[in-house]
Amino acid sequence: SLLERQLIILCCCPFLMGFPGLWGCLGQEETSPNLVNCIKICTGFVLNSSLYIKIPSPNFGIKKPFTEVIKANIGDAHAMGQRPITFLRQVVALCTYPNLLDSPSFPEDAKKRARRILQGCGGNSLGSYTASQGINCIREDVASYIERRDGGVPADPDNIYLTTGASDGISAILKILISGDGKSRTGVMIPIPQYPLYSAAISELDAIQVNYYLDEENCWALNVNELRRALNEAKAYCNPKVLCIINPGNPTGQVQSRKCIEDVIHFAWEEKLFLLADEVYQDNVYSEGCQFHSFKKILYEMGPEYYNNVELASFHSTSKGYMGECGYRGGYMEVINLHPEIKGQLVKLLSVRLCPPVSGQAAMDIVVNPPVPGEESYAQFIKEKESVLNNLAKKAKLTEDMFNKIPGVHCNPLQGAMYAFPRIFIPSKAIEEAKAHKMAPDMFYCMKLLEETGICVVPGSGFGQREGTYHFRMTILPPVEKLKILLEKVKDFHIKFLEKYA
Amino acid sequence: SLLERQLIILCCCPFLMGFPGLWGCLGQEETSPNLVNCIKICTGFVLNSSLYIKIPSPNFGIKKPFTEVIKANIGDAHAMGQRPITFLRQVVALCTYPNLLDSPSFPEDAKKRARRILQGCGGNSLGSYTASQGINCIREDVASYIERRDGGVPADPDNIYLTTGASDGISAILKILISGDGKSRTGVMIPIPQYPLYSAAISELDAIQVNYYLDEENCWALNVNELRRALNEAKAYCNPKVLCIINPGNPTGQVQSRKCIEDVIHFAWEEKLFLLADEVYQDNVYSEGCQFHSFKKILYEMGPEYYNNVELASFHSTSKGYMGECGYRGGYMEVINLHPEIKGQLVKLLSVRLCPPVSGQAAMDIVVNPPVPGEESYAQFIKEKESVLNNLAKKAKLTEDMFNKIPGVHCNPLQGAMYAFPRIFIPSKAIEEAKAHKMAPDMFYCMKLLEETGICVVPGSGFGQREGTYHFRMTILPPVEKLKILLEKVKDFHIKFLEKYA
Repeated sequence: SLLERQLIILCCCPFLMGFPGLWGCLGQEETSPNLVNCIKICTGFVLNSSLYIKIPSPNFGIKKPFTEVIKANIGDAHAMGQRPITFLRQVVALCTYPNLLDSPSFPEDAKKRARRILQGCGGNSLGSYTASQGINCIREDVASYIERRDGGVPADPDNIYLTTGASDGISAILKILISGDGKSRTGVMIPIPQYPLYSAAISELDAIQVNYYLDEENCWALNVNELRRALNEAKAYCNPKVLCIINPGNPTGQVQSRKCIEDVIHFAWEEKLFLLADEVYQDNVYSEGCQFHSFKKILYEMGPEYYNNVELASFHSTSKGYMGECGYRGGYMEVINLHPEIKGQLVKLLSVRLCPPVSGQAAMDIVVNPPVPGEESYAQFIKEKESVLNNLAKKAKLTEDMFNKIPGVHCNPLQGAMYAFPRIFIPSKAIEEAKAHKMAPDMFYCMKLLEETGICVVPGSGFGQREGTYHFRMTILPPVEKLKILLEKVKDFHIKFLEKYA
Repeated sequence: SLLERQLIILCCCPFLMGFPGLWGCLGQEETSPNLVNCIKICTGFVLNSSLYIKIPSPNFGIKKPFTEVIKANIGDAHAMGQRPITFLRQVVALCTYPNLLDSPSFPEDAKKRARRILQGCGGNSLGSYTASQGINCIREDVASYIERRDGGVPADPDNIYLTTGASDGISAILKILISGDGKSRTGVMIPIPQYPLYSAAISELDAIQVNYYLDEENCWALNVNELRRALNEAKAYCNPKVLCIINPGNPTGQVQSRKCIEDVIHFAWEEKLFLLADEVYQDNVYSEGCQFHSFKKILYEMGPEYYNNVELASFHSTSKGYMGECGYRGGYMEVINLHPEIKGQLVKLLSVRLCPPVSGQAAMDIVVNPPVPGEESYAQFIKEKESVLNNLAKKAKLTEDMFNKIPGVHCNPLQGAMYAFPRIFIPSKAIEEAKAHKMAPDMFYCMKLLEETGICVVPGSGFGQREGTYHFRMTILPPVEKLKILLEKVKDFHIKFLEKYA
C-alpha cells in the first residue's frame, strides 16, 4: 500500500513524518525534485521542515480520494491565505527602498516610522549589522508597548532583547540558565502538552525535562498542586531551576486566569524557580470572560517581595497575533531580575549570531508601535486587525462546536492561540493495527486522515499527552468556508474510522 | 585615568572590550542610556555587541583629542557609508509590498524576480514560513550560480541550504560533525589567525581546536606541511575530523592559489577530513594575478577519486562581496558527499529554527541571480557593483602601501576580503605596562589608539597569532578620503607610541 511505501521513506529519514507533499505532488514529472513539506514528530519536534524527495514512479498516477492537501499542521497564517497588515508592509518596504520615502502613494505615518527606524540603523540602512541586542529605538518602542499593555508597569529598554523569532530567545535563555550548573543536571519544568521547541531545546542542552500536566477535564487549566507534585518528584533526580509556561496555550489554547498566574508566581517565588513565560499568543484571546494577563503585570501587582525577587523572561513574536509575519523572524524577550552576570553571558551568547535580521526588527517595531487614533493609517489598520481577530474568534467557536458534535471526540473551548487540540477515541483494534505498523496510535490516525482526506494535522504524541489519551493539533487558520469543509471531512473520516475498527 | 576607570567597567562585564561609544557619547545627558557598541575579544570572539551603559558623571566633559570615533573594527559596509545595490533593494521592496508590482517606477526585470520569489512563498507572502532548507526556486538559482561560477561543474539544489547568514550554516554543520562522536573528542583544524566564530563554536561544542598557522612571511599562505604537523600532533590527544579554510582569508586577506587548494584537497582526501570552506569573500579579490578558485571546482577537476569521496561544505553570504547586506542575515551552504544520515540530522537541526528570514533569502537570490546583459537594470547594476569593488581594490593597495611606510609596521598585500592585518612592533616597555594593566600588549596598543585618535580596530589576539607577534585588524571600508586620514592618524600614533616606550 501507499502507506507502507511511504513508511520505507520514513525509515530512511525517521525524522520525517506526515508528508503532505507526498500526495500533493501527484502528477508531477518523475524527474522533477518535489519539495516536500513535512512534520517531524517522532522525537518530540513539530517542525516545518523540507526535503527534496525523488518520488518513485509507482507513486505517480495513484488516484487519491481528494484533490487538495489542506495543511492544518503549522501556525502559518499567510500560507493559509491571511493577508499581511498593510501598514506593517508599507513601513518595511520604505525601510528597504528609501527612495519610496518621496512617493506620494505612501502615508505619512508610515514614512515617519520608517525614517525613525532607519535613523537607528548604521548608515541609515537595513543592511548594516545592528547591536546584538537589537536597534535602540525599537527596544524603546517595545518598552513603551509593554508599559501600555500592563497599565503603566515600568519597562526598561535595557531589559529588552530583540530576537530571531521567539524560538531564538527561548533557546538562548535556556542555554544560559542550563549551562551554569555543573553539579547536578538542571531540571526544566514544562507543560504537557507543550510546544515541542521546549523538549527539543532541553534535550539538546542535556537538561532534564520535568513534566507537569495541564488539566484537560478543566479546560487545560494549570493547577499549582500538579506543579508541586512534579517539582517534588523531580528533586529526587535533578536540580529544577526553570518553570516554563505557555499562555495562551500551544497546542491547548487555554487562557490562564489572573488567580492562576498569581498562584504560579507565588510558587516560583517559594521554590526560587526562573519563570519563562511564552506569551506569543497575547493578542489571540477569543472566549468571553477570558483576558490576557502578562506574568510581568501580575508580578508587579503582587508587590515588591515578588517583583524584586522573581526572575522572569517573557517572549513575543511577529509570527502570531493578527499579523502572522512568521517569515520575518522577528521577536523580543523581556527579562526581569536577571543577574547582571547572567545578563552579560546572554549578550555574549547572542553576539555569536551577530544580530537579529533587521527587517524582522522593523516588523517587530510596527507590532509594538502601530498607528494610533488621529494618524492617517489608523482606520485601515484597525479594520484589518479586527477582521483577522474576529475571524479567528469565529473559527475558534465553530471548531469547538463542530468537534464536540462528533462521537468519540471531545474538544475543550479554544479560549486563545490558534489551534484546536481535540481528544479522540481510538478503538483498540486500531491501536493494535498501529502497533503492527510500529506507529503511535494517534500517528496512525493522522496518517489515515491525511491519506483519505488530504487533511494534514499533527498527532498529539508530538506534544505529549497523558498515557492512554490521544489527540491531534489542528490550526484554525484556513478561511471559514474551507475550515467548515475540513471539519465536515474530519467528522466523516472519524465516523468511518470508528466503524472500521469497531 | 580614563583608561583605568574604563577598566573597572570592563571588569564588571569582562566580555566587553574596546568601547568606542564610551568616548563617542561625551556630551550626552548623564541620565540618558548610552548605546555602546563594543568589541569582545578577551575569550576569542570579535563581536558586534551592545549594552546600555550608564556612564558615571566624571566621564562627561573630559576633552578627547578627536571629534569622531571611526569604527574600523567590523566588516559592516553600509555602516561605513556604502550604498545598497539598487536592484537588490528594489526586488526585496517589491516582495515586501506587492502593490508596488503595479508601479511604473520599478523596472520589469526586478518585478520578474519578485514575482518568481513570491511564487515560491506560501500564500505568495514573505510572511510565511518557508521550508527549513530554504525556498525551492532560490536554491535552484543558487545551484545555477555555482555552476556558472565553476565553469559548468554541476550543482544540485538538493545540496543547497539557505542559512541565516554564513555563521548559522557554519555553526550548524560543526554541530552535526562534532556531535556524532562519543569515543574521543573531535578535533577541528582552523587557521591562525582565524575569524573567531570558529574558536567560539568549537569551544561551545566542547570540541578541540587544532591550530595550523598561516605563513606570514609568505603572504599568509597555507602550507600543507604545517597542516600535517598540526594534524599529527593533534592525533595524540583528539580525533581530528574537520579542516576549516577561510579563502579569501579573514582577517589575513590572502587569496589561495590553485596549487595550494589542490594540495589541501589531497591532504583532506588522504586524511579523511571533512573540508569546511568559508568562501564568503569570493567576490572580494583585488591583487593582480590573484583569482578566486572555489574548493568545489578544484575538487571536481581533480577527478572522481576525489569528487566521489571528499566531503565538503562551502559557505556564502549576502553580508560581504559588493552588496554588504549584513542586516538581512542571508546566506547559503552547499554540501558535497554528505552522508544521507548526516544530511537527515542537518535538516532536523535546521528545522528547530523553523526557517531562515525570508527577506534574507530573497536578498540571497539577487546576489546569485543579478541582472544579465539585455535586462533593463543591467547597466546600473554593473556600474554599482564595479564601483564598490574598484574602490575596495584601491583602498586595499592604499592601505598596504601606507602601513608599510610606517616604521615598525609590516603589512602583507591585501589580496582579497576587506581587512588589513598589519604586524606591529611593540616595544618591551609598552609590553610591561600592558602587563601591569593585565592586558594583552596588542589590546593595550589598540586601546591607546582608540583613546588618542578615536580609531577603533581589533587586537590580533582576538584572532590568534604566533606568540611574540602583535597585530591588529582594520577594515578598509571607510570612504577613501576618510581612510587616508585614518591611516595618517595611525602613523602619527604609532611613531609617538614607539617614542614614548623606546
